Amino acid sequence: MANSKFEYVKQFEQMQNLLPNTYIVVRIDGKGFHKFTKYYDFQKPNDEQGLKLMSFSACIVMETFPDIQIAYGQSDEFSFVLKKDSELYCRRSDKIATCICSTFTSIYTLNFEKFMKKPLKFPYVPIFDARCVCYPDLQNIRDYLSWRQVDCHINNLYNTCFWGLVQKGMNKQEAEKTLAGTNAGDKNELLFSKLQKNYNNEPEIFKKGTTIIRHPTNERINLKVELDVDSKEQQKLNKKQKKKFKYKELNQQELNQLPNQQKEDLQVQEFYLDIIKDNFWIENKTYILL
Amino acid sequence: MANSKFEYVKQFEQMQNLLPNTYIVVRIDGKGFHKFTKYYDFQKPNDEQGLKLMSFSACIVMETFPDIQIAYGQSDEFSFVLKKDSELYCRRSDKIATCICSTFTSIYTLNFEKFMKKPLKFPYVPIFDARCVCYPDLQNIRDYLSWRQVDCHINNLYNTCFWGLVQKGMNKQEAEKTLAGTNAGDKNELLFSKLQKNYNNEPEIFKKGTTIIRHPTNERINLKVELDVDSKEQQKLNKKQKKKFKYKELNQQELNQLPNQQKEDLQVQEFYLDIIKDNFWIENKTYILL
Amino acid sequence: MANSKFEYVKQFEQMQNLLPNTYIVVRIDGKGFHKFTKYYDFQKPNDEQGLKLMSFSACIVMETFPDIQIAYGQSDEFSFVLKKDSELYCRRSDKIATCICSTFTSIYTLNFEKFMKKPLKFPYVPIFDARCVCYPDLQNIRDYLSWRQVDCHINNLYNTCFWGLVQKGMNKQEAEKTLAGTNAGDKNELLFSKLQKNYNNEPEIFKKGTTIIRHPTNERINLKVELDVDSKEQQKLNKKQKKKFKYKELNQQELNQLPNQQKEDLQVQEFYLDIIKDNFWIENKTYILL
Amino acid sequence: MANSKFEYVKQFEQMQNLLPNTYIVVRIDGKGFHKFTKYYDFQKPNDEQGLKLMSFSACIVMETFPDIQIAYGQSDEFSFVLKKDSELYCRRSDKIATCICSTFTSIYTLNFEKFMKKPLKFPYVPIFDARCVCYPDLQNIRDYLSWRQVDCHINNLYNTCFWGLVQKGMNKQEAEKTLAGTNAGDKNELLFSKLQKNYNNEPEIFKKGTTIIRHPTNERINLKVELDVDSKEQQKLNKKQKKKFKYKELNQQELNQLPNQQKEDLQVQEFYLDIIKDNFWIENKTYILL
Repeated sequence: MANSKFEYVKQFEQMQNLLPNTYIVVRIDGKGFHKFTKYYDFQKPNDEQGLKLMSFSACIVMETFPDIQIAYGQSDEFSFVLKKDSELYCRRSDKIATCICSTFTSIYTLNFEKFMKKPLKFPYVPIFDARCVCYPDLQNIRDYLSWRQVDCHINNLYNTCFWGLVQKGMNKQEAEKTLAGTNAGDKNELLFSKLQKNYNNEPEIFKKGTTIIRHPTNERINLKVELDVDSKEQQKLNKKQKKKFKYKELNQQELNQLPNQQKEDLQVQEFYLDIIKDNFWIENKTYILL
Repeated sequence: MANSKFEYVKQFEQMQNLLPNTYIVVRIDGKGFHKFTKYYDFQKPNDEQGLKLMSFSACIVMETFPDIQIAYGQSDEFSFVLKKDSELYCRRSDKIATCICSTFTSIYTLNFEKFMKKPLKFPYVPIFDARCVCYPDLQNIRDYLSWRQVDCHINNLYNTCFWGLVQKGMNKQEAEKTLAGTNAGDKNELLFSKLQKNYNNEPEIFKKGTTIIRHPTNERINLKVELDVDSKEQQKLNKKQKKKFKYKELNQQELNQLPNQQKEDLQVQEFYLDIIKDNFWIENKTYILL
Repeated sequence: MANSKFEYVKQFEQMQNLLPNTYIVVRIDGKGFHKFTKYYDFQKPNDEQGLKLMSFSACIVMETFPDIQIAYGQSDEFSFVLKKDSELYCRRSDKIATCICSTFTSIYTLNFEKFMKKPLKFPYVPIFDARCVCYPDLQNIRDYLSWRQVDCHINNLYNTCFWGLVQKGMNKQEAEKTLAGTNAGDKNELLFSKLQKNYNNEPEIFKKGTTIIRHPTNERINLKVELDVDSKEQQKLNKKQKKKFKYKELNQQELNQLPNQQKEDLQVQEFYLDIIKDNFWIENKTYILL
Repeated sequence: MANSKFEYVKQFEQMQNLLPNTYIVVRIDGKGFHKFTKYYDFQKPNDEQGLKLMSFSACIVMETFPDIQIAYGQSDEFSFVLKKDSELYCRRSDKIATCICSTFTSIYTLNFEKFMKKPLKFPYVPIFDARCVCYPDLQNIRDYLSWRQVDCHINNLYNTCFWGLVQKGMNKQEAEKTLAGTNAGDKNELLFSKLQKNYNNEPEIFKKGTTIIRHPTNERINLKVELDVDSKEQQKLNKKQKKKFKYKELNQQELNQLPNQQKEDLQVQEFYLDIIKDNFWIENKTYILL
């Protein structure tokens, strides 16, 4: 039985190949996470374990796709930036979006219970959408990441106020009304006067979101030992980690001077830093090969 | 801090909205499943539990997205057909592909251990890609599904011979060489003479793949009770199931005559049938609202 | 000197191939024709010679691209419908739009003086844009053409009133104000009472726009003799025309019974008919091979 | 009569907006120019008047679309480069391609007889296709233009040999065979020994193609006086030209120092130069605002 009679249907595929020589940003975003986080009693305004599960999954995505040079996440979203000359899946937009999305979903699902201390129950399963966007130059990429970090700041300031008021006994409608039309200064003032909180003292992970890059220092959460890793893979890991320890005591300048081969020992690591200002980009320019 | 300075980056998104008044097919496909199934010792040429895990996940996808009217799967792939007038995510190609892909991945990951009797171990996690293809008319859709079912047949006949020879002690290269250039008749003959197998007697699920539609009969695997379902959801389920039992004894003609409202009691159910010939389509035309 | 070093730039082309098995509509539209028609003193609200130049150019486009089965035009726009299975330029959207647009522009420019009795003067040259749109079924195509013909009616009724008032001495602002908020009935009434015009008696070409199909009758404007045709081409033409005359006396039923080969003698011809109702489609279904 | 019932067909339009912050190249290309140039007896291998008609039309396109910063043409093709931040037609790909293509076609058709000294005769009318391609950075643009200029060189060297041999009495098949497998050196040698031609002495317009930029010098062909220009437009022109003469005597450095407003007096002008090497780009960087 020849397949040729039906094979014409293949011609209906309309692939989109992303413009060469542009950075590809893949942003994944939780579907219905309002309901999802409510069902599993995530802490409000921020659930640190929930954020750690997000960034843990993002780290694994970065290890799986070496073309990703930097990732930034906040709330239920994560953005991954691929280098300009990436040839991942011939730059096919649907393949890139779905494979990164599927990897993230798989890791998030698999590790949910470990991070959140409760099992997933159907039909409340984690679902993410994803999209690809191209950016021609580095300024666009920095502006894109700044856009997301400003968004993190705006939402976190609002939510800190909102949930602070609710936890003080105000009902949600009242809290909403109280905050309507307030600017950043008003909200800082309200936090201080009504809730005895100095926003500056809030945890950096809440205020700045999570930035992930490949970095030589060793303070990182050891990702893989938290996973049920296959034993043969575990051995490979230990070997790689041993190599890594050699560089444990080097300072950053010394690290910068390492030849490329040794830089392969860089490992994905998360930070809670301002990525809008130049500082972050100057300090880490050796590690972000955009 | 206003976000407006960076918001220009939103304009770089280039969404693709799928042509209205066309059927949308979403096909998901396992990434690196050769390695994945080898690692978890899936039976060759077919692992029935592995296939059941695939179709189980596909059933949940169909329940999650009511616009899907029929699904067909074989090996590590599954195709979902959305009705012509679907307005799911405003027909945005990336949203449809990633959400269906993420739901499938989440369910597959969550239920792997239950079906396969072994835990998932990093880095061997299930990853799927997905793509959307539009088809203007029903003949195109039938030809598409026929294309996949012929592919199932061709691969299954080959694999049944190949693994039969290997299980008889032949090494893989020899088996490959033995089969090179043979047609379907040769392979049937080889199965019969060398492996004492009549291909016709192979299980239908292997030969035909799995077709899922919404159907009134009650022989279906009860999907949800196999899941760890939230108790409140469980109650809703029982209520719906009770309603379903009312129609248990009706024959198909009687079922066809049920008013639409009662047809809502149709539930996703899998079949292992020829979907190339007209028969399947004539018998089930009431249940497939394409 | 090898070209290979620079040839990578070819990969940046992102072609769009239009979905197979769908009708392709190409609509061209005059750029800045308000200014253009004012400069050349086109009659208001309709310039019959201007409309004839448009439909003449459209007829040549139809003769150049045999896949076009029907065209409809009004004002400074023309729509061309290609048959479902057209493989013109491998269905590349940009090629189809630019080649049809360029052919139309070339013919319009070349014949402007003959139709309008005045030469074109820079910078007032005719420019058209064009777009491709796919439609999956015949109902969509009929609705598309109905949309354009309703647009023709609405604009023509308005313009007939507006220019009637202006020609009576009202200034343009007053005329606009007089017509603001009126419905079709009001406008008919105004035409009758203030301008002594029965809209029904307006020329069909103004009220209905121009529809072009391939048709066997012989009342058509003989397109090619109006052009400066190369003499060798003229001979071919005469031969084809002689063949055509054989069928001159046949009635439509007899024509319908002609074998396909003889139907090649059908020639593009324009009509000013209602194409919204079924009648046109029933009468001409033999000639419109959609 | 409301149009709303049919207006749904508008939703079938699938516009493509070109990625922001990228250069847009529009390349137009003659359709069937082999036959077209043969019919009108264009000189082989190059018809200087034919090339002048091409570049004349390109100059008018550049004057019509100020976002075009540089154009390059050879044979029957012309490429136009729009600046990175162009918002022409909201960067809609089909609009940009068809409007530039239509303008070029209109001007070429209108001026054919003036340049070629013979009238256009149907069906041999000039038709061009066009496509848009995006390039993220200036190096890509220079590589694109280099690609076209190398193509010009390769084709012109071949054609100079081929037509030289044919004009010496060799038939076309023999000439083709003679040239098969020869490299650039072989062809130079053949030209010199068999045809007594030094390729270096061929006209620059043939060897380099035509580059058009906005430039302050006054040696340019005065475009507009060759056109039948409307008399009011002629006056504007003279005024602008008078202004231009003020700067006639300035040297390039002085010109560079002119304020922006005065640079508006730059006018499109054609050159036959090497645009692969850096020189052209260094000398003209003030005039090409990419």
